Formats: sequence, structure tokens, C-alpha cells
Amino acid sequence: MTRTLSDLAQFLEADFEGDGEQIISGVAGLENGEPGHLVFVENEKARLLAEKSRASAVILPLEAPGVGKPALRVKNPRLAFARVAGLFAPDHLEGEGVHPTAILADDVQIGSGVVIHPQVVVEKGAIIEDNVKIGAQVFIGKNCKIGENTRIYPGARILADTIIGRRVLIQSGAVLGSEGFGFVQEEEAHLRMPQLGRVIIEDDVEIGANTVIDRGALGPTKIGQGSKIDSKVIISHNVSLGKHCLVVSQSGIAGSSKIGDRVKLGGQVGITDHVEIGDDIMIGAKSGVSKDLLEPGIYFGIPAVPARKAFRLQGGIRSIEQLRDRLKKLEARIKILEKKE
Amino acid sequence: MTRTLSDLAQFLEADFEGDGEQIISGVAGLENGEPGHLVFVENEKARLLAEKSRASAVILPLEAPGVGKPALRVKNPRLAFARVAGLFAPDHLEGEGVHPTAILADDVQIGSGVVIHPQVVVEKGAIIEDNVKIGAQVFIGKNCKIGENTRIYPGARILADTIIGRRVLIQSGAVLGSEGFGFVQEEEAHLRMPQLGRVIIEDDVEIGANTVIDRGALGPTKIGQGSKIDSKVIISHNVSLGKHCLVVSQSGIAGSSKIGDRVKLGGQVGITDHVEIGDDIMIGAKSGVSKDLLEPGIYFGIPAVPARKAFRLQGGIRSIEQLRDRLKKLEARIKILEKKE
Amino acid sequence: MTRTLSDLAQFLEADFEGDGEQIISGVAGLENGEPGHLVFVENEKARLLAEKSRASAVILPLEAPGVGKPALRVKNPRLAFARVAGLFAPDHLEGEGVHPTAILADDVQIGSGVVIHPQVVVEKGAIIEDNVKIGAQVFIGKNCKIGENTRIYPGARILADTIIGRRVLIQSGAVLGSEGFGFVQEEEAHLRMPQLGRVIIEDDVEIGANTVIDRGALGPTKIGQGSKIDSKVIISHNVSLGKHCLVVSQSGIAGSSKIGDRVKLGGQVGITDHVEIGDDIMIGAKSGVSKDLLEPGIYFGIPAVPARKAFRLQGGIRSIEQLRDRLKKLEARIKILEKKE
Repeated sequence: MTRTLSDLAQFLEADFEGDGEQIISGVAGLENGEPGHLVFVENEKARLLAEKSRASAVILPLEAPGVGKPALRVKNPRLAFARVAGLFAPDHLEGEGVHPTAILADDVQIGSGVVIHPQVVVEKGAIIEDNVKIGAQVFIGKNCKIGENTRIYPGARILADTIIGRRVLIQSGAVLGSEGFGFVQEEEAHLRMPQLGRVIIEDDVEIGANTVIDRGALGPTKIGQGSKIDSKVIISHNVSLGKHCLVVSQSGIAGSSKIGDRVKLGGQVGITDHVEIGDDIMIGAKSGVSKDLLEPGIYFGIPAVPARKAFRLQGGIRSIEQLRDRLKKLEARIKILEKKE
Repeated sequence: MTRTLSDLAQFLEADFEGDGEQIISGVAGLENGEPGHLVFVENEKARLLAEKSRASAVILPLEAPGVGKPALRVKNPRLAFARVAGLFAPDHLEGEGVHPTAILADDVQIGSGVVIHPQVVVEKGAIIEDNVKIGAQVFIGKNCKIGENTRIYPGARILADTIIGRRVLIQSGAVLGSEGFGFVQEEEAHLRMPQLGRVIIEDDVEIGANTVIDRGALGPTKIGQGSKIDSKVIISHNVSLGKHCLVVSQSGIAGSSKIGDRVKLGGQVGITDHVEIGDDIMIGAKSGVSKDLLEPGIYFGIPAVPARKAFRLQGGIRSIEQLRDRLKKLEARIKILEKKE
Repeated sequence: MTRTLSDLAQFLEADFEGDGEQIISGVAGLENGEPGHLVFVENEKARLLAEKSRASAVILPLEAPGVGKPALRVKNPRLAFARVAGLFAPDHLEGEGVHPTAILADDVQIGSGVVIHPQVVVEKGAIIEDNVKIGAQVFIGKNCKIGENTRIYPGARILADTIIGRRVLIQSGAVLGSEGFGFVQEEEAHLRMPQLGRVIIEDDVEIGANTVIDRGALGPTKIGQGSKIDSKVIISHNVSLGKHCLVVSQSGIAGSSKIGDRVKLGGQVGITDHVEIGDDIMIGAKSGVSKDLLEPGIYFGIPAVPARKAFRLQGGIRSIEQLRDRLKKLEARIKILEKKE
């Protein structure tokens, strides 16, 4: 597939300069652009690289000097680049209709334009809305609902009763609707507390590879609209994650915790159960949250504290040796004073 | 399915008060109980909520005041609730017999009442005991043995030679019997040490979604009776985990470590290889254990130390600034004394 | 299968002493060796155990005293043992040809000696070289290339465009080629940055169970020759991992970071994005790396610092209480001096 630069300008509602008939056959990074490629420039350093790049055209900020190539002019070059890249991105789930080796229960409702790849299992009562694409070897349990234009990569498991919104991406090996870690102690044994809730995924959410989202114990586990969850994350039973959150790989949120909107968790963060994280909070990688954090801002550490305080504590640790030296000197000086008495 | 309150009283061997003919159609949390639902009360706060709940009946502690609804009276309301909830829990693996798309080797032994869902593979020499239920797309390798009433959720992988006891639950995406991280260095290369052992899972164990349990290198990796392992945990080769342990999500136990009975690991705990953890030890979330811990008690930190000591160390860090201030004042006071000489 | 001791001596190019006709039917650890087994001895403690072992033969260092059993004499007994164990290791992927339930696109190229187990899906354009063995329920996407003698365990997912070298082992539940966590913020929403790169796995690499390796955003994500990655690791988009590295379970390397050769990461290590780790660096378990580490050596801590410094910082924390005591005494002594004025 190719596009002309002027086509792309129209697509982005942007101005262009130079040859509008320049053929664009793909996008690339500044270091590996080839003829036919479109690259993007966000700052002066990138602009200088773009001048030397073999790429044929460039997306430039509105006010930046040109780089001697045909250019698209936009306010946010990275965003424009993401949009154009989307045009050239291959569809890893392309296909047509329902593959004969897929096993669908009799009463499954399938919308128009649905693609179901080989060896998929869809159990009874499931609803697959229009234009959903389901990769090979996916499992969709009883009474699940998969919203329009949602895409599910090979080998994801959507267990019974899960509700998934529109334009969601679920990656390979993700498990939605597993049974959370709820037990009641009976003498030394642990009796399972049945997990009777479900998982609800709102529109425009992404769930990374091998991530696990437990069903609720009684109510739902809920992922808010537009939130993006990376790979290998665990979201436990009855968690509520707000809208437009980012949760980086290998983080975990324990049972019933309530996370606000636009929250960002770095990698390998742990949040204990039954805490509340307010809106607009960012928690640094590897932090451990053991109590409510409500004030917007950046937190880190184990336990997580406001960033400024965390830096002070780390600085304190690094200063201990120096404190010891000062203390030693004082002890010597006092000894001298005492002797003089 | 519905039950009367008096039926449930009989099931729990409990007394009831109020209308024994009250129909119970399900269980619920205190906040979302609806007519027909049974809720439970553990403390006075919950009791006040239960009074206002729309639920039709309540499980109460033996001595608590009533809440104006039909009630079951038990010693441990949470435990009783878990048992009743189990009656109402849907069977996500319901089905009948062996699905025609399942591929079973000729010599596989299948007990009575076994359910095998679509696209399961069972290799030669495997034994599936009575009433086992195996979800879609599960893999069971050569010579595995799956004990009575065990349940395996869609997409779990039980690799060759694994022995699983009775009433075990294996969740989606779990891998049992993978090859552990054993290598021998040969110049700069790493030669694989063949992993010739197996995984042994005793009765009443649960293994969470996407958890990995490596086979032993020579002997077995062993999970003791009644232990519950959450999602995304790694149990490495030759680990021995005792009975009735709880291992929370994203924890890891490295090779050959020996964990006692009734041990509890919080989330994201790491235990290094070849250490011993005694019985009745609890290790706090995110801790790192690098040496034997034998004395029963609570430990946390990196490295993990007894909780009291860990708290003191954390308090110490928070006090550094104050120490610095006191030191500064002393320096000034000494200077004054020295000048007076 | 059995071998005589003299066969094994020839295989290892080693000398033997005692009965060369001793039949060896397997290998074992020192504690559980049985008649017919071969064990190995690395040190005096092991040598004493070997003397009492029921095993029939032993691999001994060149200079060690004998143990009263037929013996193989080698420079590196552990390495020799790994090689012999490999002879006795069962082939978990044994089989013949392509199983009829495997779904292969018409244009897939299959080498000689390839084994493909049931319910595998291989999409169009894929190349499977000679002697590759693919376990049940594996997915191989469009245009993947799988090099000679590579082995893929049941339920791994190799997504489109992935290039895998020779003699690679990919374990169950691993996902190669997932879409990395790249987004562009547009007001409060996060727009996906299309991930157009691929994964390249060089020869002799191992990838553990449920590990995730994201495709590159524009260029490749690359795993260097001979590197071994344990289970549940995440390698993010555009990471470059060098040759002969070891990455232990539950570690994560964030986007675009560049790791040198012979690097070892302990368990649960986190490396932030866009950093560089030089050759011959070892990073202790649970460490967090937030900036470049270029000097060969051992590092640990959050943030990771050279081991010697990390130990000093930990010692400093443990000394705070003592510093406080010394400070208190000084304060008392100064008070006395001040009063005497």
C-alpha cells in the first residue's frame, strides 16, 4: 500500500510543503528511514538527523525550519506519525468469516464482519458484535460479550461472563475472568470463597500479553474506558481501575483496590488490597503502595511516599557515612574538651 | 437454583431464626444484596449495613443482635457464607463426556464422570481419574496423572510426567512441568542441564492463572496438600512447598528452596535458591529472602528480617534528617565551648 | 536406553576406571542414586556422599580419590554430567510428521524431519526449517521463520514476522512478537503507536514459560546468540540483549534498553527504558536499574549501585540506631561541659 504526501496531508488535516505527489510506502525511525519512508521530528536534534536521513518525507512541527524534503506540518508530530503509522500497520488478524475448525455453541450471536480464526472456542450465550476479530486458539466462555471492533490476539482466554467494550485490544495469553485469591481459613486449611462476579472492560482498553484480570468475588472487576494495561500485570478481584490509566508491565493491584482516572503505574509496582489511589497519580517503578494515596502527584518507594520525600530519604541513606564521620570527629573534640577540665 | 433458608440451615448444621421458607436465590455483598439474596455479617459495622440491605436473609454470628430479617446463626459467618456461595457458584467447566475435537492418545485411561472440552490434547500414558473436568484447549502431556475431581481451566498446560492430586484447581494459562533454569557454563556459553524430574501436586492445591511450576532437575518439585498459589507465580525446579501455604501473585521461589507448612508469602516476594523457610512464617509483600528463615513469625524487607526489626530500620531511615539536625547543633555547641578555652 | 561406562567415556572423550562394562541406565543426584545410575562429584563433601550412594558409577574430577565405584575422570564433572544427562533426557516433543489437526497455510515451507503436534496453527509465508519440533497448540504467525533444530513447547505463541534461529528452545505459554506499550497522549487519551518491528532470536537461545518478548516499534527487538531467558520475563520493544546473557525469572527490561554480552540479571530485576548495560555485568535479584551501567562488575539495590557501595549503604542503615545512641551520649556529655562553664 502506498499513499501520496498530499493524501496524508488530507488524512491529517495538515498542510504540506514540497512535492505533494511524493509516494510514501511506509514509516520509519530517523536512523533507519529508506526512500519511500516518512519520518517525524520532534526537536532540533531529530531535525538534524532528518536532514541526513534517506527517508523521502518528514513530519515537522509547525514552526521548525525545513529539512530539504517534502514535509507535513502539524502541531504534534508524534501523534501525527502514530496516525499515519496506523495506516501502514499490518492487520495481524486479517481473515474472513468463521474458520471451520472454530467451535461455536449453537446460540452464539455473531455480528457482521466478524473474523474468527482456527481453533477458537466460543461457548453458549456469547455475543460477538460487528467487526470483532478473534485470533487463533482463543477461548471465549459462556455469556461473554465482545464489543464492536474489538481485537483478540491468538491464545487469549476470556472466561465466562466477561463483558468487553468496543475497540478493545486483548493480547496473546491474557486471561480475563480467572478466580481471585479468596479463601476462608478453617483450622489450618483454606476453603475457597467462590468468585461469583465478572470482569467488565470498557471501550478503548488494551490488555497486554499474559496479563491476568480476576473476576470479582461478588461485584465486578472493572477497567475504565481508555486505560492501557501492559503485559504480565495482575489485576485482582473487585479492583476498579479508572479511565485513561497506564499500568506498566509486571505491576499488580490487589483485591478491591480502587484506582482513579489518569493514574500511571510504573513497572513492577505493587498495590496492596483495599486501598484507594486518587486521580492523576503517578507511581514510580518498583514502588509498593500500602495505604491510600489521594493527593495528585508523583510517588515512589517501598512504601511509596511523595517523590520529594522519597528523594530526601534516599539522600539521607547516602549521607549516613558522612554523619558517622562527623560524629566521630565530634567525639574526639569532646574528649579533648573533657580532658582539659 | 433456589434453596429455602431451612434447607441452608440443614446444609450448614446451623440454627435459623425467622421464616424458614424464605427462598434464597443467591448470595451477595452487603452493598449490593437484592431480594432473594443471602448476605453475611462479621462485625457490628456489617450488622448495621445488613439492617438496611435489600437482601432477604443474613448469616449472623451466634451472639449478635438480629437485623429484622430471617437469619442463620453460625460460629464463623464468613466460612458459612463461602459454603453457601459454593452451592450457587456456576460450574464453568460443565459439559458431558469427551468432546470429539479432543485428541486423546489410545492408551489414555479415563475415569467415570470425566468431562473433556473441545481441542484438548492428552498424550499417551496419561491417567485421568473420576470426575475430572478439563477445560477447552488444555494440554496434558505423556504419563501425567490427574486425580479425582480435579478441575483444569481452559488453556492450562500440564507437561509430561506431572502428578496432580484430588480436588486440585489449575487455572488458565498455568504451566506445570516446564524446564527450569539450569545451565552449566562452558567457556562463555551456557549448556542446558537436562531437567529430568517432575512436578507433584498434592490434594486440594490451587494453582492460579499463568503461574509456572518447573519440573525438578533430578528429583521432584512438590506442592504440599492444601496449598494455594495465586496467579503469575514462579515455583522453580526442586522447590518443596509445604502444606496449607498461601503464595500471593507475582511471587517467585528459586530452585531447591524448601518452604515449610502454613507459610504465607505476600505479593511480589522473591525467595532465592537453596534456602529453607520454616513452618508458620509470613513474609510481607515485595520482600526478598536471601537466607534461611526458621523462626515462626512475620518478616519483611529486602533482605527480609523480622518485622519488628524491619520497622525499626524503616524508622531509622526516616530519622536521619533529625539526626543530622541534632549533629549540626552539637557541632555549633562544641565550637562555642572550644572558643571559650 | 542404556549405555556402558566405556561408551560414555568415549562420548565424553574421558578416561574411565573400574568396570567399563557397567551398565548405566540413567543419571541421578547423590541423595537419590539407584543401581544403574551415574552420579557426579564436584567437591570433597559430594565425594563422601558418592561413596555411600547406591548409584553404580560416578563422574570424578581428574585428581580426586576414588569412591570404590567405576568412574569417569573429567576436568569439569558438572559439564560432563549435563552432557550424559542429555543422552538420557526424554524428548517431550517426540512424534512424526505433521498431525492432521494442525492447520498450515498453503505456502508454508516445511523442512525435512519436522514434527508438528496436534492443533498447531501456522500462518502463510512461514518457514519451518529442518528438524524443528513444534508442540501441540502452538501458534506461528505470518512470515515467521523457525531455524533448524529449534523446539517449541505446547502453547507458545510466535506472532507474525518473528525470526528464530537454530537450536532455540521456546517454552510453553511464551509470547514472541506482542505489541509493546507505546502510546501517544492526545488530551487525556492514549493513542496506540503502531508497533511495526519484529522479534529476532539468534541461535541457541532459550525462552522460558510464559515469558513475553514484544516486537520492535520500528526496528527489531533482538535476543543475542546463546542467551537464556527464564520464565515470566518481559523484554519490551526494541530491546537489544547481547550474547550469552542469563535473565532470571520475573525480570523486566523496558523499551529500547541495550544490554551487552554475558550480562546476568537476577530474579525480579527491573531495567528502565533507554538505558545501556555494558558487557559482563551482573545485577542482583530485585534490583532496579534506572541509568546506564557500563563498568563490568556486580551491582544491586534500588537504584542499583556497585555491590560494594550497596553493602555499605545497607550497613549504614543498620548502623543508624547506634549512631543515635552515640549522638545521645555526646549530647549528655556536652551538657555537662556546658554546665561547668
